[in-house]
Amino acid sequence: MSTATMQAVVYEGPFNIVVKEKPKPVLIDETDAILKVHIAGVCGSDLHMYRGHQKTTTGHTMGHEFIGTVESVGSAVSRFKAGQKVMSIFSPMCMQCWFCQHGHTNRCVNGPSFGSMSLDGGQSEYVRVPFADSTLEFIPKEVSDEMMIIMCDIFPTGYYGAMKAITKLMRNNDTADSIAGGALHAPSALRPNFQKIALDQLMVVCLGCGPVGLCAVLSAKALGAGTVYAVDSVDDRLEEARKMGAQPLKLGTDDIPEIVKAATDGRGADAVVESVGNKSAMRLAIDLVRACGVVSSIGFHQGELPFTAFEAYSKNLDINMGRAAARPVFGESLTLFAENQDKFSDFITHRMPLADAPIAYEIFEKHQARKVILTL
Amino acid sequence: MSTATMQAVVYEGPFNIVVKEKPKPVLIDETDAILKVHIAGVCGSDLHMYRGHQKTTTGHTMGHEFIGTVESVGSAVSRFKAGQKVMSIFSPMCMQCWFCQHGHTNRCVNGPSFGSMSLDGGQSEYVRVPFADSTLEFIPKEVSDEMMIIMCDIFPTGYYGAMKAITKLMRNNDTADSIAGGALHAPSALRPNFQKIALDQLMVVCLGCGPVGLCAVLSAKALGAGTVYAVDSVDDRLEEARKMGAQPLKLGTDDIPEIVKAATDGRGADAVVESVGNKSAMRLAIDLVRACGVVSSIGFHQGELPFTAFEAYSKNLDINMGRAAARPVFGESLTLFAENQDKFSDFITHRMPLADAPIAYEIFEKHQARKVILTL
Repeated sequence: MSTATMQAVVYEGPFNIVVKEKPKPVLIDETDAILKVHIAGVCGSDLHMYRGHQKTTTGHTMGHEFIGTVESVGSAVSRFKAGQKVMSIFSPMCMQCWFCQHGHTNRCVNGPSFGSMSLDGGQSEYVRVPFADSTLEFIPKEVSDEMMIIMCDIFPTGYYGAMKAITKLMRNNDTADSIAGGALHAPSALRPNFQKIALDQLMVVCLGCGPVGLCAVLSAKALGAGTVYAVDSVDDRLEEARKMGAQPLKLGTDDIPEIVKAATDGRGADAVVESVGNKSAMRLAIDLVRACGVVSSIGFHQGELPFTAFEAYSKNLDINMGRAAARPVFGESLTLFAENQDKFSDFITHRMPLADAPIAYEIFEKHQARKVILTL
Repeated sequence: MSTATMQAVVYEGPFNIVVKEKPKPVLIDETDAILKVHIAGVCGSDLHMYRGHQKTTTGHTMGHEFIGTVESVGSAVSRFKAGQKVMSIFSPMCMQCWFCQHGHTNRCVNGPSFGSMSLDGGQSEYVRVPFADSTLEFIPKEVSDEMMIIMCDIFPTGYYGAMKAITKLMRNNDTADSIAGGALHAPSALRPNFQKIALDQLMVVCLGCGPVGLCAVLSAKALGAGTVYAVDSVDDRLEEARKMGAQPLKLGTDDIPEIVKAATDGRGADAVVESVGNKSAMRLAIDLVRACGVVSSIGFHQGELPFTAFEAYSKNLDINMGRAAARPVFGESLTLFAENQDKFSDFITHRMPLADAPIAYEIFEKHQARKVILTL
C-alpha cells in the first residue's frame, strides 16, 4: 500500500518557503485528530522563522492558524467527530499537566508547537492535531470560517496582552485580603482609602499595529480603557488602529514620548502593550510607561532586554512577558471579537491558494498585506 | 544670635562615616515637623552608599529609620503636636501628587529621601521631617519604641515584597470582570474553571536574609504561604530565617536549584522575593522561579539585568521591581508585625551611642550585627 500524500508549505530556511508533497499525517496518539484544512493563516510570528531570527531546523510544515473539517479522531477524543467544522488554537495543550490545570496553558509541558520542528503545522491539506479535545474549538454561527482564523492566535493573544495590563492596573490598591478572597491574614481595613484609578481614565499605549497589535488595540478599547494610543511606522496599519478606536502615533514622525507625557501631566502611560518583539520596541515601552505602570509584552523576544535593573527599580516597573494563554481567555475574547467583528471587515486583505504560499510570505513580510490567508 | 548645633552622622565618602557638629534643623515648610531623635537605625540600604555603590555627593546626614519626640510643627501640620512620641516612615510623601493619591507613595514626586543629598537623615540629635502628617506615625502601645524601628522601613518593605508576590499568584485565573469589580466588559462565565493555586500550597523563595529579607520571610509565612525557603550565605541569618518559619538554604553549600525543583515536581518556585539588590541574586531568582511565576524584587538594583528578553518570554515571567510603597501597607504590616514581634526579640543585636556610628556601620557591613540601632 502506497502512502497517501498531500501538498504542504515547508520551511527550507530563511526566506525560503516551498510548497511540496509530503506524506499525509495519520493518527499517532489516541488524543489526536486529523483535519482536512480549508483555510490557513500566515501569522506575524511565522515571520520570526521566515526572517531567520528564530533558530530552527528545516523541513517542517509551517502554520499555526487553521480552520478545517475533522477527518478522523483517536479513541480518546470525545468532543469532536469526523465531519465537524472546527478551528484550532495556535498551540496544543494537554490539560493534564500542572501548568494546564492551573490555567497556564501557554506553558503546557506536553504540548508541541504547530509549525515548528516539534510538530508540522496547518499550512497543508491535512494536519494532525494533538490533544484535540482541548486544542480544537467549534466555530460559532455568528462568525464566518474566514474570520475565525483571527481567533486561532492573534485575537486571543492581543486580548491577553491588553487584559493583563488593564486588570493589573485596576487591581492596584486592592487590599491583600480582598484580592485573595479573604484567604490572606492581613486586615484590609487598615489600608488607607487611596483613589482607585478609573477604567475610563486609563491611558494605554499599544506598540506595534501588526495583526496582534490591532487586536490589542481593539481589546483595550473594548475592555474600557479611556485612551489608547497605537504606535507603528506603517500608515495603513495606523489607519486600521484608528478604526479600532485608537489615536495613531507614527514612529519617526510624531514625538511619541512628548505626546504621551503631554496627555498624562508628564507621568507617562499607565500601561504599554508591546506586541513587536524586538529591542527597540521594548526600549520605547520602558520610556513611555509611567512609574508604577505596567508593561505587558506579548511580542516574541529572542534577544536582550534593553533596560537596566536600575531603571526598573527607579520606575517601580511591573512587567509581564511571554506567549498568551489562549485557552483561559478563549471564551471571553471570542465574545469580544464576535461583538466587534465589523471592525475586522477589511482585516484580511489577501486570499491566496496554498500553492502561492511563497508569495504570501513575501508580501506579508514586506508589510504589503495586512493579513494573508491561504485557501484550499 | 548664634545658630544652635547638634551631633549628626555624616557621609564623607565610601567607608567614611563621621560624627560631627551640624546646625540644628529648623522648620522650612509649613508641613514640616522637627523631631528630637531617640533611636535611629542603620539600614541595609545605607550600605549601598557606605560601600560606594550608590552615586552621591557627600556631607549629608545619614539615616531613614528613626523614633523621636515632636519638638515643633509647621502651621499646616494637623495630626501631630510638640511632645508626642512618633516614628517616621523611611521616605516623606506629600499625599497630594497623582502618585500619592493613587497609593504609589513610593514614587511621590515631591518627597525627597531621608539620608541622601536631597534631605538630611535621622541619625542625628534632631531631624526635619517634610510632610509630617503623612510621613510620621504614632507608636502603638503594643510595640516598644525600639521595636518600632523595624516598622520604619524593613518590615513594611519585606511585607510589601512578599505581599506583591503572593497576591499576584492568588489572582492568577481570576477573570477579567471579577478583578475589576464588574467594570470590564468581558464575560467571565466563559472562562474555564481552572484550578486555583491554594495559598497553603504556595512555595516562595526569599533571596537574602538580611533584615528586609527576614521580614519578607515572616510576612510570606504569616500571609499563609505553605513553604518558604530562605537563601543566604550567613549562618546566623539562616538561623533567624528558620525561627521565622522558613527552611534555610545556604549559598555555596546547598544545591539550591535542585532542592527547589525537587520540592515542586521539577517546576520551580511559585514566587521569588528578592531583597539583595545585585546581579547574582536576580540571576538566581530567574533560575529558581517556575514558568508563569512571579519575581518580586525589593532589592535596590543599580546595575544591569542579568537575564535576556528571550528567557523572560520563554518562562512567561511576571516581575515587579522597586522601592516599597510603605504608606499603603503600613496598617496591615503593623498588625502582622505586632502579632509576630516575639519572633523579632533577638533581631536588634547592637545598641550603640550616636558617637559610635562609624563602628556601627563597620560591623553591620561585615555581617557581624543583625541589626544595629543608635541611641541618643
